[in-house]
Amino acid sequence: MKLVECVPNFSEGRRKEVVEAIVDEIRSVEGVKLLDYSMDPDHNRAVVTFIGEPEPAKEAAFRACRKAAELIDMDKHKGEHKRMGATDVIPFVPIKNMTMDECVELARSLGKRIGEELGIPVYLYEYAATRPDRKNLADVRKGEYEGLKKEIETNPDRKPDFGPSKMGKAGATAVGAREFLIAFNVNLDTPNVEIAKKIAKAVRHISGGLRYVKALGFELKDRGITQVSMNLVNYKKSPIYRVFDMIEREANRYGVKVIGSEIIGLVPMDALIDCADYYLKLENFDKKQVLENRIWGD
Amino acid sequence: MKLVECVPNFSEGRRKEVVEAIVDEIRSVEGVKLLDYSMDPDHNRAVVTFIGEPEPAKEAAFRACRKAAELIDMDKHKGEHKRMGATDVIPFVPIKNMTMDECVELARSLGKRIGEELGIPVYLYEYAATRPDRKNLADVRKGEYEGLKKEIETNPDRKPDFGPSKMGKAGATAVGAREFLIAFNVNLDTPNVEIAKKIAKAVRHISGGLRYVKALGFELKDRGITQVSMNLVNYKKSPIYRVFDMIEREANRYGVKVIGSEIIGLVPMDALIDCADYYLKLENFDKKQVLENRIWGD
Repeated sequence: MKLVECVPNFSEGRRKEVVEAIVDEIRSVEGVKLLDYSMDPDHNRAVVTFIGEPEPAKEAAFRACRKAAELIDMDKHKGEHKRMGATDVIPFVPIKNMTMDECVELARSLGKRIGEELGIPVYLYEYAATRPDRKNLADVRKGEYEGLKKEIETNPDRKPDFGPSKMGKAGATAVGAREFLIAFNVNLDTPNVEIAKKIAKAVRHISGGLRYVKALGFELKDRGITQVSMNLVNYKKSPIYRVFDMIEREANRYGVKVIGSEIIGLVPMDALIDCADYYLKLENFDKKQVLENRIWGD
Repeated sequence: MKLVECVPNFSEGRRKEVVEAIVDEIRSVEGVKLLDYSMDPDHNRAVVTFIGEPEPAKEAAFRACRKAAELIDMDKHKGEHKRMGATDVIPFVPIKNMTMDECVELARSLGKRIGEELGIPVYLYEYAATRPDRKNLADVRKGEYEGLKKEIETNPDRKPDFGPSKMGKAGATAVGAREFLIAFNVNLDTPNVEIAKKIAKAVRHISGGLRYVKALGFELKDRGITQVSMNLVNYKKSPIYRVFDMIEREANRYGVKVIGSEIIGLVPMDALIDCADYYLKLENFDKKQVLENRIWGD
């Protein structure tokens, strides 16, 4: 069975009935399983996570997007998080028996349908991007709803991949394919946030570190410690254990100890099994030896 | 959904058609999934692994036992492995939403049916044992088929839990409940088998080590190294990472390095996730955060 994860973000984090109506659309599709959803009133944004076979997942994403366009008016939307549409972004993530290419196909086919049937401008991003300058979601969303509304009609560079070069109250939607994102934090036995910041800098891609790591240094004031807070955007290529070991070594350079780490939200089984494999120095381990893969793995 | 694993052993490792006929009985039960089966001609023994909900698993074990009694004549059986019956042993292992007590109930109810309907003497062992001297399978099987055949009729201590105090050509069967068994080996960068033996002694229960560890030291001649070869009979209480770290420290005492480890056969996902949790020093990690548990976990 092929399994894809979909994590659409909607520009509504205050009206529970609106988010419920959107989530109900996802629930209404057979072959799709809702894993989680949360609302953030400050960001005024909802994040929904569901999983399913490719076609049902696409159908569920479409219905949710249609409902969001009905119920959310971007002219009235305010919130801290950057956004450009009622359905702001729809990423597909390969989970099981799916390639990234198949997720890209799924994103493009959903994007086409949203553009044609709902008349919403759609931008393909990350692995699904059709142009290098649209790989990065931040670039796609530049100017946000208000800025893009004007630019889309006049600037040929902002012409969407699908749908009209004109925005209604539902704004525009980014549809894409990406790897599973793991939120991973490492806690340091020091109150000195400068050390956490230096370690974050050492480990993150943007300043010379590991390619698929985004990192910031923070204080955890109530505990009197500091934290390297990260998004691991490709755990297969920049694995958790390598990130962890690197932070431990960098911390050691300041005489600081790693006192713990935390995973926020969901993590794929394989990301943790890869850690066991590494620390136990397993020889010739095959994931087919994992009992659960034998039970559920078809 | 409740899931139980069953790993029956049959006294036939040479005639493929006999083993196939037994395995077909297991395949014939809906709600049961065959995970693996293997034959050993020297031991003249077959090991079958299947999984399912409790009632189907019990039914499959019963049918396999009935077929083995039809096709295997213990008067003609020779092999290196100790044995006392055509179906030698049937252990149930709790996998998911099952307690050990439920596995004990399952073992007792299957044992009763085998005794009554097939007229085979049944001994309950390990967690299902009704007497302390029957906890250990080796004690139950003492004298093997030939010895027990005589003793069962005369020695009240050998009276079976179910079935007649008399053995036919199908011999007797041990039915029980136990924890998942992990075969785990650690390889040492030394050709000196005395070191491997000393480390095995340090780590195993019988000579003062960890309670749920059985261990032996071996030479791997073709690689010029040695190995601590283990059965971990309760990975929840004597976890893999603790065993591994202990061996690493003991090896260090001899100036020897651990060069790798291996898991033979199946391993539950949780046993490996517990290793990741330990080495990454995870704080407040909940197994519900594992994506696969959310997909398959009901």
